Amino acid sequence: MQATLAEIVQALGGKLQGSPDTVLTCIMPLSLATPQALSFLSHARYAHELQTTQAGAVIVSPESAPLVHSSDVAGVAGVAGVAHLSRPKPALIVTPEPYLYYARLSQWWAARIRENDHARVAREAVAGSAAHPNPLIHPSSVVHPEARVAASARVGPLCVIERGAVVGEGSWLKSHVTVGERCEVGRDCILHAGVVIGADGFGFALDAHQHWVKIEQLAAVRIGNGVEIGANTCIDRGALIDTVIEDGVKLDNLIQIGHNVRIGAHSALAGCVGVAGSATIGQHCTVGGGAVILGHLSLADSVHISAASVVTRSIAVAGQYSGFFPLDENAHWEKNAAALKQLHRLRQRILTLERENASRKEPPA
Amino acid sequence: MQATLAEIVQALGGKLQGSPDTVLTCIMPLSLATPQALSFLSHARYAHELQTTQAGAVIVSPESAPLVHSSDVAGVAGVAGVAHLSRPKPALIVTPEPYLYYARLSQWWAARIRENDHARVAREAVAGSAAHPNPLIHPSSVVHPEARVAASARVGPLCVIERGAVVGEGSWLKSHVTVGERCEVGRDCILHAGVVIGADGFGFALDAHQHWVKIEQLAAVRIGNGVEIGANTCIDRGALIDTVIEDGVKLDNLIQIGHNVRIGAHSALAGCVGVAGSATIGQHCTVGGGAVILGHLSLADSVHISAASVVTRSIAVAGQYSGFFPLDENAHWEKNAAALKQLHRLRQRILTLERENASRKEPPA
Amino acid sequence: MQATLAEIVQALGGKLQGSPDTVLTCIMPLSLATPQALSFLSHARYAHELQTTQAGAVIVSPESAPLVHSSDVAGVAGVAGVAHLSRPKPALIVTPEPYLYYARLSQWWAARIRENDHARVAREAVAGSAAHPNPLIHPSSVVHPEARVAASARVGPLCVIERGAVVGEGSWLKSHVTVGERCEVGRDCILHAGVVIGADGFGFALDAHQHWVKIEQLAAVRIGNGVEIGANTCIDRGALIDTVIEDGVKLDNLIQIGHNVRIGAHSALAGCVGVAGSATIGQHCTVGGGAVILGHLSLADSVHISAASVVTRSIAVAGQYSGFFPLDENAHWEKNAAALKQLHRLRQRILTLERENASRKEPPA
Repeated sequence: MQATLAEIVQALGGKLQGSPDTVLTCIMPLSLATPQALSFLSHARYAHELQTTQAGAVIVSPESAPLVHSSDVAGVAGVAGVAHLSRPKPALIVTPEPYLYYARLSQWWAARIRENDHARVAREAVAGSAAHPNPLIHPSSVVHPEARVAASARVGPLCVIERGAVVGEGSWLKSHVTVGERCEVGRDCILHAGVVIGADGFGFALDAHQHWVKIEQLAAVRIGNGVEIGANTCIDRGALIDTVIEDGVKLDNLIQIGHNVRIGAHSALAGCVGVAGSATIGQHCTVGGGAVILGHLSLADSVHISAASVVTRSIAVAGQYSGFFPLDENAHWEKNAAALKQLHRLRQRILTLERENASRKEPPA
Repeated sequence: MQATLAEIVQALGGKLQGSPDTVLTCIMPLSLATPQALSFLSHARYAHELQTTQAGAVIVSPESAPLVHSSDVAGVAGVAGVAHLSRPKPALIVTPEPYLYYARLSQWWAARIRENDHARVAREAVAGSAAHPNPLIHPSSVVHPEARVAASARVGPLCVIERGAVVGEGSWLKSHVTVGERCEVGRDCILHAGVVIGADGFGFALDAHQHWVKIEQLAAVRIGNGVEIGANTCIDRGALIDTVIEDGVKLDNLIQIGHNVRIGAHSALAGCVGVAGSATIGQHCTVGGGAVILGHLSLADSVHISAASVVTRSIAVAGQYSGFFPLDENAHWEKNAAALKQLHRLRQRILTLERENASRKEPPA
Repeated sequence: MQATLAEIVQALGGKLQGSPDTVLTCIMPLSLATPQALSFLSHARYAHELQTTQAGAVIVSPESAPLVHSSDVAGVAGVAGVAHLSRPKPALIVTPEPYLYYARLSQWWAARIRENDHARVAREAVAGSAAHPNPLIHPSSVVHPEARVAASARVGPLCVIERGAVVGEGSWLKSHVTVGERCEVGRDCILHAGVVIGADGFGFALDAHQHWVKIEQLAAVRIGNGVEIGANTCIDRGALIDTVIEDGVKLDNLIQIGHNVRIGAHSALAGCVGVAGSATIGQHCTVGGGAVILGHLSLADSVHISAASVVTRSIAVAGQYSGFFPLDENAHWEKNAAALKQLHRLRQRILTLERENASRKEPPA
């Protein structure tokens, strides 16, 4: 795969500084880029790398563009730059949001790498003898006759789509994906390998013998448009009302979403997060890796939870919330952890000291 | 699917107050219920919803039943009720344990929705050309000829059942389930999509080069009766003795159970829990989501671990145990976390203050 | 399966004390061993079990060997031993590292149990009609024609190996494994059921509407030799540079490895660990179960992270690091957790007390 700067700028915009005929064969970080690579400056703190990068072209903001052709960026980057006068200056694509431009470039690039991969798959399937009526459905997948898979949706190998399930236009189920009975996946979603949509929620009632009696999970899962779901992530079906993932939500790998949960549009959850049953997460929220959100809670829009934090109460105010034990050398941690188990008593002892001191301050009778 | 109150009470018991001919088409929470819905009052704190629910029928306890026909429940629920006189009062099913009744109702309901789904699957399989000798085993599954799957067990699509494995009567493996060599699944179990039974336990010895030498996991996994295992949960085979999951245990999604672990009957573990090797969990225990139980520990019966807690020692006394950092606004958390790393020294400083004060209390010479 | 001590010592070395004709049928822990069992003493703290074990043979260190034939080990083990004079003394295999010897024995034992299982699988496949050209690739697996699977590699049922992927000599993919496009698995690796290699890394840029724009993950995953990867573990492909797992790394079940991560040779990560994108872990590191390592961090060689700890900064010095809330009875935990949320203020109060006391110490004017 290769492309000229002219092709890139024509497809994605931006203001070109340099030769439109420059040929590029890959995208690389500034520090690793070769003269055949296109790179990008995502943040001013990496500006000093502009002085040393070997990249053939760099995506930059209007503010950073002048740095490429200056011989010293120390004033900007806080690093004493050494002029690499012998190095040819890279060409530039100037755009207000270089990182976003890079994201779009990566998509354009991937589409060209794929060389109409979907079409190829369809062609190969048609040529084969075991072809499914829909050539984008791999013949090894098990699709129930009463499921509805849109004509432009692609179902990779060894997926299971159960009775009454729906997969929308343009969605792509990679491999080993399960979409359970009556669950719906919207348009332009990506479900990575091993995703399980619509396993039973975890609902039981205790009987008189303290045995668990299963509560059948009668509802389903509804996933909006433009949702991406990482490998081996699980979204359980609702007990009585559907579990809902709204448009544009991004879920990383190995996430557990309990029954009846609702995740608002354009929220993003990192790997290994657990969301317990009946929790509601607002729009534009983020949840860091390994965080746990307990059941029946509600998070407002634009709430951001730090990695490995445990959310035990509803949060009504947007903002960043954290709660995890700071890492330390084990010996220090042990001492502090031991003291922590007496913290309530330490507070009492401080109070006693304060009272003693206060009584001493009183004037002698 | 629809049912009359008469049918329901005939099947599941309870005392009916209202017309036995009332037709119901779904089960819904009180707050969302329509006149065609059957609902339930699981806890007195929701009693005020009885005043406003549109449900056609409600499952209630003998204590709560009078509230439905009163015009004000403020005294009970702490909420100022407004009489909805124009609303027809719902019919009632009166039973000592409404939530348990709902659980059983959900099973009865699901069985009717399924319309003998197992039988249908078997019929379809027999009609098809690729049918497995056991019509409840999906033809896409790979079952070793030396595995034993009971006649009434159902194996969904794309499962793998290895040599010497056993699946008991009435059990249901949903899809993409793996049951490894010589592992046993009892009667009436449900294994959801992606479950892995019998992967190797994580056992290695260090050699002189500090390289890990694999310890072969020679034992297997034994799962009792009535066990339910959530999507993508893994239960490793033992090194020398079997990993054992006793009767009636319920495991949620994405749980890791290490080798040689034993989980006592009727315990329940929520999503994303990790149980390290050779741990023993008693009967009737519960473990909250994301908790970690270290290896070689023993938990007594009826021990309850809060979500996201880390169990680092054996627990001999029944009760609730917790250990996670409380969530806070990030700015507050940062200050407290910084102070926490000095907690041991703070304790020393308190001690110093106490000594100073004590010396001051001494009578002057 | 059975073996004589002579066969074992011939294969694995060690100094035999006892009859070479002793026949053994299993390996068991000292406390459970029968006269037909071979056992081992892995640590001096279990030395007292030597007095009571029924094992037919025991693997011991030169230091421990004399204990077996003494009648009292109280001085060593701290337990009052009772002489079991009627019990025949077990035979011994004396070797400097009994646990390592046991690891190697387990492999030798497993190989014999398997009775050339690979060969049998190949034979059966050749005999069957649906055989893959490579008889060690199960016919239910989907291997792209442009993937390269070495002749001695084994691919179990229902795996997916995508275009351009490589699986090296002697590696074994158990079942339901996915190896994505252009990803490489080295020699002598074991990938357990449900492993996903090469799902997309979690990379998005926010656009002006606060919607996530996907960053295509253009690189791949490279896995060295002798790597073992547990069930349902996921290793994401890199965005621009490959995610790399070096030789001899051992990953337990349900681990998430983000894009661009590098894990140094012979490191071991326990179950449910999450490693965020672009983190670098050195060689010979260990990470306990459920720990979280944030992105863009670097851990030196021989860093050891305790279970459930959160790594939020790079670690340059080898050693053990911890950070999790100590478990407590729930009532105690609640009090301490409440005090913890005021810890910063408690520190201020201590400082105030110290100032008060200091001012009092000043000599009167």
